[in-house]
Amino acid sequence: MLVQSAYGKSRVRLVQVRRHGNRHTLRDLTVAIQFKGAYDESYTDGDNTSVLPTDTMKNTVYALAAQGAITDPEPFALRLGCHFLDRNPRLVRVTIDMTEHLWSRIRNGEREHDHAFVRTGPEVRTVSLQVNRRRSILWSGIADLLVLKSAGSAFDRFLTDEYTTLPETRDRLLATALTATWRYREHDMDFGPAWDAARRILLDTFANHHSESVQHTLHAMGEAVLDAIGEITAIRLVMPNKHHLPFDLSRLGLENRNEIFVPTDEPHGLIQATITR
Amino acid sequence: MLVQSAYGKSRVRLVQVRRHGNRHTLRDLTVAIQFKGAYDESYTDGDNTSVLPTDTMKNTVYALAAQGAITDPEPFALRLGCHFLDRNPRLVRVTIDMTEHLWSRIRNGEREHDHAFVRTGPEVRTVSLQVNRRRSILWSGIADLLVLKSAGSAFDRFLTDEYTTLPETRDRLLATALTATWRYREHDMDFGPAWDAARRILLDTFANHHSESVQHTLHAMGEAVLDAIGEITAIRLVMPNKHHLPFDLSRLGLENRNEIFVPTDEPHGLIQATITR
Amino acid sequence: MLVQSAYGKSRVRLVQVRRHGNRHTLRDLTVAIQFKGAYDESYTDGDNTSVLPTDTMKNTVYALAAQGAITDPEPFALRLGCHFLDRNPRLVRVTIDMTEHLWSRIRNGEREHDHAFVRTGPEVRTVSLQVNRRRSILWSGIADLLVLKSAGSAFDRFLTDEYTTLPETRDRLLATALTATWRYREHDMDFGPAWDAARRILLDTFANHHSESVQHTLHAMGEAVLDAIGEITAIRLVMPNKHHLPFDLSRLGLENRNEIFVPTDEPHGLIQATITR
Amino acid sequence: MLVQSAYGKSRVRLVQVRRHGNRHTLRDLTVAIQFKGAYDESYTDGDNTSVLPTDTMKNTVYALAAQGAITDPEPFALRLGCHFLDRNPRLVRVTIDMTEHLWSRIRNGEREHDHAFVRTGPEVRTVSLQVNRRRSILWSGIADLLVLKSAGSAFDRFLTDEYTTLPETRDRLLATALTATWRYREHDMDFGPAWDAARRILLDTFANHHSESVQHTLHAMGEAVLDAIGEITAIRLVMPNKHHLPFDLSRLGLENRNEIFVPTDEPHGLIQATITR
Repeated sequence: MLVQSAYGKSRVRLVQVRRHGNRHTLRDLTVAIQFKGAYDESYTDGDNTSVLPTDTMKNTVYALAAQGAITDPEPFALRLGCHFLDRNPRLVRVTIDMTEHLWSRIRNGEREHDHAFVRTGPEVRTVSLQVNRRRSILWSGIADLLVLKSAGSAFDRFLTDEYTTLPETRDRLLATALTATWRYREHDMDFGPAWDAARRILLDTFANHHSESVQHTLHAMGEAVLDAIGEITAIRLVMPNKHHLPFDLSRLGLENRNEIFVPTDEPHGLIQATITR
Repeated sequence: MLVQSAYGKSRVRLVQVRRHGNRHTLRDLTVAIQFKGAYDESYTDGDNTSVLPTDTMKNTVYALAAQGAITDPEPFALRLGCHFLDRNPRLVRVTIDMTEHLWSRIRNGEREHDHAFVRTGPEVRTVSLQVNRRRSILWSGIADLLVLKSAGSAFDRFLTDEYTTLPETRDRLLATALTATWRYREHDMDFGPAWDAARRILLDTFANHHSESVQHTLHAMGEAVLDAIGEITAIRLVMPNKHHLPFDLSRLGLENRNEIFVPTDEPHGLIQATITR
Repeated sequence: MLVQSAYGKSRVRLVQVRRHGNRHTLRDLTVAIQFKGAYDESYTDGDNTSVLPTDTMKNTVYALAAQGAITDPEPFALRLGCHFLDRNPRLVRVTIDMTEHLWSRIRNGEREHDHAFVRTGPEVRTVSLQVNRRRSILWSGIADLLVLKSAGSAFDRFLTDEYTTLPETRDRLLATALTATWRYREHDMDFGPAWDAARRILLDTFANHHSESVQHTLHAMGEAVLDAIGEITAIRLVMPNKHHLPFDLSRLGLENRNEIFVPTDEPHGLIQATITR
Repeated sequence: MLVQSAYGKSRVRLVQVRRHGNRHTLRDLTVAIQFKGAYDESYTDGDNTSVLPTDTMKNTVYALAAQGAITDPEPFALRLGCHFLDRNPRLVRVTIDMTEHLWSRIRNGEREHDHAFVRTGPEVRTVSLQVNRRRSILWSGIADLLVLKSAGSAFDRFLTDEYTTLPETRDRLLATALTATWRYREHDMDFGPAWDAARRILLDTFANHHSESVQHTLHAMGEAVLDAIGEITAIRLVMPNKHHLPFDLSRLGLENRNEIFVPTDEPHGLIQATITR
């Protein structure tokens, strides 16, 4: 018995260039589309009569981009979602996920170039939209924002058992690759400035918080976003603890002045939480 | 308000070698552990008194492996889950995810070597276990099983709209990187032979099914596993459609005999479903 | 002053299916082409009159594949190289690199399926050809062949200095991701069986050699290939030492029976050598 | 016969934090070390008596970092190279490769944080040093600098043959992931400002050059660096042509205003050259 199904297209790549005379603007997106609906007979009987090909989903991304500027990824996701719901009576819920790859203008001192760009990152901007015929749920976010602080981070007075060997510390390096997504109260707003504000608050709070743990800092970062940006009603943060282990210099006959660290990817802690008003 | 949280350790790498005289056996696992429970004050107050460090979770993987052979990843996941629940009163639910990297003995004709191995793949074996104090849910599976068939695959009579350009076809290449996970009725069973049987049935059905779409073949593969293996109560399959586009040789003045294809990763279709008895 | 230049096309993906009734065969290649020659004015003056577009190089891969079966990647590389030299008087040297992704037939017991395939790996087959108007140099090879042995490997009596902390051992795990390339005396031969023989000898020697170091085993593997396969005149091997560190169980109050290891990717040793007759 | 060999350690990860009161500075490096020398008997006889373990090479990276600030990666590479040559009489040539992962201070308006950092990229700074007992060759560089221009790029009047289908264009998107390495006249200099200047000139020239091809722009970028920075004697550039293909909107009944593009990774052109004074 088929109890759940979905189908769609992933990794649709799109660059839109808008030209205002010599001055160009750029949007660089990776889009994924997923349909849920009354498509069971395509699975059970091989009957494709109500199946919109995923190739058409892909074409639709380019067609809608050709018919209007992508000012922000969020309204473009909403346009795509409504388009698919309008045309496909069998469609119950459509999910649109977007990753925006960020470019800034190449600068020469104070002057920005009109049509030459350099990729900035590694962080990306994200959108995840779910729409059905009654409502839409929109999460905006940031992923792969790598941050590190070399003071103001402790981890001690934790639970121990017979397999605990971790030493307590009041002074460690704290580093993470932040993924944060947040939900807006309304979908009719100016998403760009809100995203910039959220990014700035996340960075600021990470920098200035006196951290007793990744959990503690994650919570402070989420609360700070909710406090500062009234349009945001919920925020979810995922923070791997990218451990930086002090190298044991004593084995080499050298003094350890808390300066030399081995960054490791594997294994890593992984902390996550959702915070609402 | 903290409405959801979890913390744990990811990418714990473990190789266990068991020696029976000259004859060795090998298990190569990547383990992830996630705790959900009454840990709110670590987020809200920076109070770590009930927080078991993720470093201890990691040590526990090695400690439990040292205290008994890993015959299959499933019972090892169950041992880990029970261990954590037993010792941590605040813990409500623990999730253990495992990926097993597969090795086979190096062969020389009919003879297998006793203690030298070659990695097989790209597919891996997976386990995902959720345990709370009342029950456990265990999914076993396979990921990254790459398969391709060059006959017996069609896609036609589908829905079209103004953005549809895909031609109908009764003869296309069908390729996917299968991820399948299935749930067993009981947790007290011989998991290795069941995994081998599921893999064989998935391959066989993919090979022999007359495919009207990825959806159609996915469903047939899931049904075949449920039909053949009584211990399995549900199966979930995820199948990207790894498109192989016929290269347009007519532009080069050459005839197209359906022999020359361009495999593409980006974009790809993505089809998924869950099937139960 | 422009002292060296090259241009070409990389990551050209090609699948060729050959149909003999119901029985199909498959070749899956990634091809890179690089031109060196008298192309300076394209760099210095923006004069493209003698520049064959890299897009044409890509088309040529498909055109030549359409005009004849790819029996092995080596003769296909030779056909491509000769084609480009014949048509491009400015071309001095062309390099063709190929990676073959390996597929085997899906089996049901003793029966192999006619047109359904499963990817095998992670290892791949490689070809690197350099051709100029006087001669061609052809290296065939294998990459990403992952092997591990749990006995017969030592590393001791090495040089030490004030920063040496590594303990000597007569019994360690030895694991590597082998890359080997070899050069044939003649280009008019049956490459498939030679590749199979080289792979088998590399695996056998890795398995059976009593290893004093990665260097020692690497050399034995290369010598064994030269001893067994008369057509091969030189072999180059690259072997990362994929360290498997014994986990320190004594810190957990447990006995270490040389069974529990932590595989690490970072950092790794890296050993390489070229051996000729 | 062993005709060439080398051994060493790769992917040694190091973060150095220097504390000047509250103000911290950060260096984040990945280091690879390779030894060439009189080590044949380790290969041929399994005799390790003159082999410095790669584990000791790794320890040495940490030991030397602990004994002095890493002001720039270049002098640190030189210190490492000299250290190894001094202590290892059998060593003929040592190669030190470094990748620096870039961090900038987290800012709040005009204020920079003292000890909190955000990763910038995706570009990285690179160093490649070869030292023997007579001389050293040092290449500094940048890798993965992603740039794109939406005007000022053409590709036409190229050579055609029977497999050429590429249309000529006077207005295309030009994008690349630049890798550039350059060689300095002297090794006793201030490397940081020179690197900043090279990066700025590469970006500026990419932005402002009227491009007839990737080759043409690559050459202009190299010449501009040589013109502006007297200490640099040679520069090598590698530029994949990351194609952005106009999406064919006419098939969807829409007008193409040169705004909608499909960025592709596979296949890509690959252009490279070395330019000297």
